[in-house]
Amino acid sequence: IVYAVTPTYARLTQKADLTRLAQTFLHVRNFHWILVEDSPVKTSLVTRFLASSGLTYSHLAVPTPKERKLGANEPRWRKARGVAQRNLGINFLVQNKANTKGVVYFADDDNTYDVQIFDQMRFTRRVSVWPVGLTGGLRFEGPVCSHGKIVGWHTSWHPERPFPLDMAGFAVNLAELVNNSKARIDPNASRGYLESSLLSSILKKEDAEPLANDCTKVLVWHTRTEHPKMTDEERLLRLGKPSNPNIEI
Amino acid sequence: IVYAVTPTYARLTQKADLTRLAQTFLHVRNFHWILVEDSPVKTSLVTRFLASSGLTYSHLAVPTPKERKLGANEPRWRKARGVAQRNLGINFLVQNKANTKGVVYFADDDNTYDVQIFDQMRFTRRVSVWPVGLTGGLRFEGPVCSHGKIVGWHTSWHPERPFPLDMAGFAVNLAELVNNSKARIDPNASRGYLESSLLSSILKKEDAEPLANDCTKVLVWHTRTEHPKMTDEERLLRLGKPSNPNIEI
Ligand SMILES: O=c1ccn([C@@H]2O[C@H](COP(=O)(O)OP(=O)(O)O)[C@@H](O)[C@H]2O)c(=O)[nH]1
Ligand SMILES: O=c1ccn([C@@H]2O[C@H](COP(=O)(O)OP(=O)(O)O)[C@@H](O)[C@H]2O)c(=O)[nH]1
Ligand SMILES: [Mn+2]
Ligand SMILES: [Mn+2]
Repeated sequence: IVYAVTPTYARLTQKADLTRLAQTFLHVRNFHWILVEDSPVKTSLVTRFLASSGLTYSHLAVPTPKERKLGANEPRWRKARGVAQRNLGINFLVQNKANTKGVVYFADDDNTYDVQIFDQMRFTRRVSVWPVGLTGGLRFEGPVCSHGKIVGWHTSWHPERPFPLDMAGFAVNLAELVNNSKARIDPNASRGYLESSLLSSILKKEDAEPLANDCTKVLVWHTRTEHPKMTDEERLLRLGKPSNPNIEI
Repeated sequence: IVYAVTPTYARLTQKADLTRLAQTFLHVRNFHWILVEDSPVKTSLVTRFLASSGLTYSHLAVPTPKERKLGANEPRWRKARGVAQRNLGINFLVQNKANTKGVVYFADDDNTYDVQIFDQMRFTRRVSVWPVGLTGGLRFEGPVCSHGKIVGWHTSWHPERPFPLDMAGFAVNLAELVNNSKARIDPNASRGYLESSLLSSILKKEDAEPLANDCTKVLVWHTRTEHPKMTDEERLLRLGKPSNPNIEI
């Protein structure tokens, strides 16, 4: 079974992003979605959304500790996003699904996934890896492979990282997380080292399993959904004709 | 049958956007995709993509006339996008599918569609309408309806437009386009008047058919995919280690 762990938080594009993500996941057999809200409570928007999604899921919530939250004017690379949520997802699986044969994948809510990657990752023995499009300031970033082994990395930014790849560029067999309580994402890891903090505690890069045709295909893209302008909401508010708040977006 | 007409052009996020769009469309039965490239020729990326998509499709191409193309530093609202492509899609359907019972929908490549809207629009008698999320500077924009009739519009920008709604907020029965050669999108229409130019030549707003629960649900969102930064590509080029151009993104 593939367990996809997705951190999510209230933003204007949240429901849109979750909608198209769910429509992708509906094509994947033996799939269980662990959707973890960055929130002290489960919101009703996400609760309703999941109930009508048609997917098998677990709905969790944990707020990012205040001191780790990005300030409104802080550049987004200053603090890692989604770490508490992904670790809660791991702990939930370790506690509740330790006896299932499963593969864990960290699937952010606004990335783009070709469904083919799920049928490849489900055979992961320990850790599988592949390149991710549109990340690292590059067309793609991740492992360079040959005959089923990592022989280098295609990366520009901090190439000395043990695993210079994106969160969306690997999957882990659940057993590795069950058997090794150190295998978690380090919330104190510096920028770009989240993935390495988890993977370094599991295996050496020589032991990783390349997917996506020996890492020659891009099947996952680090897309970002533009933050929409809401400039006219205020104008209508001043005119006494605001949006109907009962219409959920 | 639902005919979705989608203009598309070469941008870094094109394959990602088309991938998730196709995965949405795969859930829709009796569906035919008219994908129209803004290009003098059909590109091999899109040709290969469509061939492996699993969808029923027609692949067309027409370049936007040079004088209508947006300059690199021009703000994006200066010129309409996708008009020549949508009109080619209409003409293709009128010439090749005039005898089929079909409904035509203009589905941009980077929007988000809840699959429910397709099973609602397929019963369109003349023109059906519904609100679109995240457009017009608002949470949503489009018709306000009551008991199956349009009773007003929720809009802020140029509310005097005959049909102040987004291109993704209506569907047209193919027969209306077959029987009325004036029912086309006017490439000379001013900003925000594209939709009105087509719909005004077909019917009065009183005759439009509201969908999405009398226009109380948002099932389509005008999402935009952020343009990714490629800053590190040049750096790697200078180091003599550029991205492998054989890896398609
Ligand atoms: O305060 C936040 C910001 C982000 N996220 C989630 O963490 C992941 C990565 O965030 P984002 O997509 O904004 O980051 P980027 O695309 O810049 O890497 C996504 O699934 C978000 O929904 C979160 O849970 N809380
Ligand atoms: O030069 C262009 C720009 C855009 N488009 C297409 O026209 C539609 C609307 O463009 P875009 O999504 O960029 O516009 P916006 O989201 O700003 O309305 C999309 O399907 C694009 O792929 C096109 O064919 N040629
Ligand atoms: Mn993201
Ligand atoms: Mn768009």
